[in-house]
Amino acid sequence: MTSLTAIEDAATRLDGHAARTPLLNAPLLDRVAGRRILVKAECLQRTGSFKYRGARAALTLLPPETPGILAFSSGNHAQGVALAASELGLPAVILMPDNAPAVKIDNTRAYGAEVILYDRATTDRDALGADLCAKRHLHLVRPYDDPDVIAGQGTVGLEIAAQTAALGITTADVIICCGGGGLASGTGIALAALTPAFRLHTAEPAGFDDMARSLAAGQLQRNSALTGSICDAILTPEPGRLTFPILQSLDAKGLTVTDDEALRAMALAFHHLRIVLEPGGAVALAAALFRNGLADTCICTASGGNVDPAVFRTALDSPAI
Amino acid sequence: MTSLTAIEDAATRLDGHAARTPLLNAPLLDRVAGRRILVKAECLQRTGSFKYRGARAALTLLPPETPGILAFSSGNHAQGVALAASELGLPAVILMPDNAPAVKIDNTRAYGAEVILYDRATTDRDALGADLCAKRHLHLVRPYDDPDVIAGQGTVGLEIAAQTAALGITTADVIICCGGGGLASGTGIALAALTPAFRLHTAEPAGFDDMARSLAAGQLQRNSALTGSICDAILTPEPGRLTFPILQSLDAKGLTVTDDEALRAMALAFHHLRIVLEPGGAVALAAALFRNGLADTCICTASGGNVDPAVFRTALDSPAI
Repeated sequence: MTSLTAIEDAATRLDGHAARTPLLNAPLLDRVAGRRILVKAECLQRTGSFKYRGARAALTLLPPETPGILAFSSGNHAQGVALAASELGLPAVILMPDNAPAVKIDNTRAYGAEVILYDRATTDRDALGADLCAKRHLHLVRPYDDPDVIAGQGTVGLEIAAQTAALGITTADVIICCGGGGLASGTGIALAALTPAFRLHTAEPAGFDDMARSLAAGQLQRNSALTGSICDAILTPEPGRLTFPILQSLDAKGLTVTDDEALRAMALAFHHLRIVLEPGGAVALAAALFRNGLADTCICTASGGNVDPAVFRTALDSPAI
Repeated sequence: MTSLTAIEDAATRLDGHAARTPLLNAPLLDRVAGRRILVKAECLQRTGSFKYRGARAALTLLPPETPGILAFSSGNHAQGVALAASELGLPAVILMPDNAPAVKIDNTRAYGAEVILYDRATTDRDALGADLCAKRHLHLVRPYDDPDVIAGQGTVGLEIAAQTAALGITTADVIICCGGGGLASGTGIALAALTPAFRLHTAEPAGFDDMARSLAAGQLQRNSALTGSICDAILTPEPGRLTFPILQSLDAKGLTVTDDEALRAMALAFHHLRIVLEPGGAVALAAALFRNGLADTCICTASGGNVDPAVFRTALDSPAI
């Protein structure tokens, strides 16, 4: 399992590159929630999501002779890998589904990566990736099932621990947006060591709550579908093989929110925090706002803000305002 | 003139209350601009603008027996004063024009202030305010022509100096959103002392560029109108009597941008920085993006983010994207 030391080492490698994102709060948002909400604004991270942390943490450990890297991603991992690779002078090939949000595809190309689009329905992505890796000697950078990536995402936990200590917060529920579980497991490891009284929760879209069901059942559960939610960034087939046992060992609990609740959270973040969130980056805030039985203080990740304007307009139409 | 010491004292009083806002940047935004742009994101400040700094800095110097305070404001000063007064247990009365953005009126009330709306065309605001101050023994908190308010806004300059030093930046153009000039003069004083090679600029809406024309002419120039721009937060009749001589002595230059350029800057901030800006809070970024003849590195304030959704939708329709 990724250690606190590995996370601290990743923080050293990220120093001067990744942003130390603020922990935002707003009295009027707390009033809506009926509790104190602190938002770790990773939408303000470079490339607009926490994924840059894990990508750079992993790429900085590659041997200098690495000819290039390959990643699969619907968008945020793609952008994080593309920028980190560009900064390190590594050629990057990114396989993206052709229905990924346009802003994510455009930005990944703009960071200098070679983007190869594929049809989710007709293409065997893993075979395509394996073929490219073999032919072009590329190193595969996994989005979450990689200890170095988990260590990079865990630097979010180091920062939350320092920021909450400065505020004198000793007990809280921590809620983390969850696709494969890289951010939740890395952050959870750091917080278990540094702020052991915090309770860990994952947040997922209703109907795509493989992690919540897996944690409840004590064994891996798969999602029955991979489309049908606006939370594109966090739709994964099943929990990670590394991340799930970590989250089990940390006694994490799973929360779910509807797409409408994610949109309402985006609207409330627009009004009261003045940050731009994508639906998948708003599910933890939605849980903190709309789920019962949570602590008086909730800390949630706002994990990404790469959203097409049409989706953002839908959020602004939300009745939550 | 407000001194660096007064600004440092204000920073001590604000510590633990005002947020230390991040200095954001994005490679893709730099590419659009053709220069390096660093954005001091005061839209992430408490109440959504820098105005909270000046308000709290001034209110914390009032005698404890002060029965209450009064402020005039179209919205951001109103919210800053309302929250600071509420935190300090001071009753607050805010006079707001009845055509101020709804979000600003609603939020000011939500922070606990008594809001009195008036018709700009038919009401003598100063007479109404003087009458209320006399009858209810209220202390008037001016939006910019007050040395304590200027000192509070100057804490933005202390933070910019520290944040740019950490990045190794020694020369830059600094561009500051300008209504009455409180933020520009306070920040300018701090930067003149701490980073003397930085050049100071104000940014205003075209047609409402009283500060730019005053700086060019060497004497106070008035605006001919007070309506007709979407930049509601920074439409002032003329430069402040305290702030203008400060900006003259700092050799500040005035820049102007169109409403369309402010909207395009809002759209680019949405896409590349994932922050929500109001038009008046986006004029400095617009100048950094669209004016010629500036330095390779520009630091600009994103001074506020309290925007009605309809205006934000207009920005998302901007052709700049």
